[in-house]
Amino acid sequence: MNADVRVTVLAGGVGGAKLAHGVQRTGADLTVVVNTADDTRLHGLDISPDLDTVAYTLAGVVNPETGWGRADESFTTLETLRSLGEDAWFLLGDKDLAMHVARTAHLRAGATLTEVTARLAGALGVRARLLPMTDDRVATLVDTPAGRLDFQEYFVARRHADEVLGLTYEGADDAAPAPGVLDAVASADVVLLAPSNPFLSIAPILAVPGVRDALATSSARRVAVSPIVGGQALKGPAAAVLASLGHEVSALGVARLYAGLVDVMCVDERDADLVPAIRDLGLEVLVTDTIMGAGPGRERLAHELLESA
Amino acid sequence: MNADVRVTVLAGGVGGAKLAHGVQRTGADLTVVVNTADDTRLHGLDISPDLDTVAYTLAGVVNPETGWGRADESFTTLETLRSLGEDAWFLLGDKDLAMHVARTAHLRAGATLTEVTARLAGALGVRARLLPMTDDRVATLVDTPAGRLDFQEYFVARRHADEVLGLTYEGADDAAPAPGVLDAVASADVVLLAPSNPFLSIAPILAVPGVRDALATSSARRVAVSPIVGGQALKGPAAAVLASLGHEVSALGVARLYAGLVDVMCVDERDADLVPAIRDLGLEVLVTDTIMGAGPGRERLAHELLESA
Repeated sequence: MNADVRVTVLAGGVGGAKLAHGVQRTGADLTVVVNTADDTRLHGLDISPDLDTVAYTLAGVVNPETGWGRADESFTTLETLRSLGEDAWFLLGDKDLAMHVARTAHLRAGATLTEVTARLAGALGVRARLLPMTDDRVATLVDTPAGRLDFQEYFVARRHADEVLGLTYEGADDAAPAPGVLDAVASADVVLLAPSNPFLSIAPILAVPGVRDALATSSARRVAVSPIVGGQALKGPAAAVLASLGHEVSALGVARLYAGLVDVMCVDERDADLVPAIRDLGLEVLVTDTIMGAGPGRERLAHELLESA
Repeated sequence: MNADVRVTVLAGGVGGAKLAHGVQRTGADLTVVVNTADDTRLHGLDISPDLDTVAYTLAGVVNPETGWGRADESFTTLETLRSLGEDAWFLLGDKDLAMHVARTAHLRAGATLTEVTARLAGALGVRARLLPMTDDRVATLVDTPAGRLDFQEYFVARRHADEVLGLTYEGADDAAPAPGVLDAVASADVVLLAPSNPFLSIAPILAVPGVRDALATSSARRVAVSPIVGGQALKGPAAAVLASLGHEVSALGVARLYAGLVDVMCVDERDADLVPAIRDLGLEVLVTDTIMGAGPGRERLAHELLESA
């Protein structure tokens, strides 16, 4: 792939990181715009889970078993926090902690999240542009039968077991896109919507004022990859969230969410029967093996997506 | 030793921690008032080196080689911070880091340093009362030929190699003693000035408004232990600081600093020749082996100090 091809990936955590990694392997000029509505503050530390997952993946230091966190990780500080009586339910590895400590220190010193992200990703060896969707605080709040929950409380502490009755991207209306985000969406050759959770990862990015319009009017070829394969989520609560919010749990259900925003919907071979219905939405359809696995599989999918675009 | 004997130790780091540990081993009712003018903020974390040294020592988890930091420590986060390009010159172990993370989080949430110290020391298993000298910010600033330095920059980063031309306890005039400090000094049966650095550890405590008066007028028997033995400091820059500030580098020089504040000066057997001159200052003198070493030696010295009082 030519390094002159500018590709922007809108990404959440693990799925978005894998697709971005595949694009990086093609040699394209990569920008990743990352969801920050999962960001949280724990033990006084500013934690950006999706930014870190993407940075670790692109730097090749991610834990290959989980797809997030760092490889060869230890948990000494976390275990000590627990022994000190702290409520340490969030899995913080010793290496991972260094990212949070450094990020928190620089943010407290007045740097923006964009600046801190560029610095830390660069130090990890990431060559792609890694952009938070915003430097402002946006927080996904999850309405459940147990009440309104902070995102990480819903996702990690309660293991996304609660039914999702509604979602609020708190602060989104007043947020500004981070520097470079609108341009990355508007002027790329290709924009990829990663197979991340449509409501928990992609929707918060689109909720930042200006991003949805930039995507809708972009001159880029826009391709979305369905995170639903054979009616099931590859990872996480995407299927459950689609269902509880009244959407069909299928690549067609996802395509309906993205119709008008993308040119091409990429679905898995197992969902070939949905192609006519997706075409009826006015979308082109790319049918392929969307299961990425390790590096070569990610690169193969990225190549197919870019060639289709 | 009867648990009804109330002993208050004024302490800096390692020397003060060892003496406090000796008193704890006697079974006395122990309060330790600890210097916080060395406290610093690094990587966004609030670090209280002397409080941690005393807590770790009393809890039996201190590194026995160094007298500070934790035993069986690892440095994964520190090494990762360095690999991220952070200027990580302060030695932060993974276990130690948990204290700073927890302290910072609770302070940011509005707790006082007194409250956080009680919580964390209690979680470590410390039964003694551990009190910061103040909940306010006091910072020892060190004037050197290289200019004015923050304490940890002088002490750790530059390995206390600069000549000390003067000292300022910034913020001391406006600081209030932490809850319990004045009472611990005024109403104890025995107050011990640990063999900590007179200028860098004990003087900041006495600079907090009310503490010097409480000591001067206390009904307690007040005993100071010389940190200078045979004209040399047992540890750290005490000898160099005494000399550069124009004081005699001896137990007599230390006794002159404490005359009027204590009843008894405890000096090492090697300094028996100084006894007459110290008595001439109006002080009683206890001559003994002041080198504490491990637990039994600390307990022996503590017993002798309490029996003399």
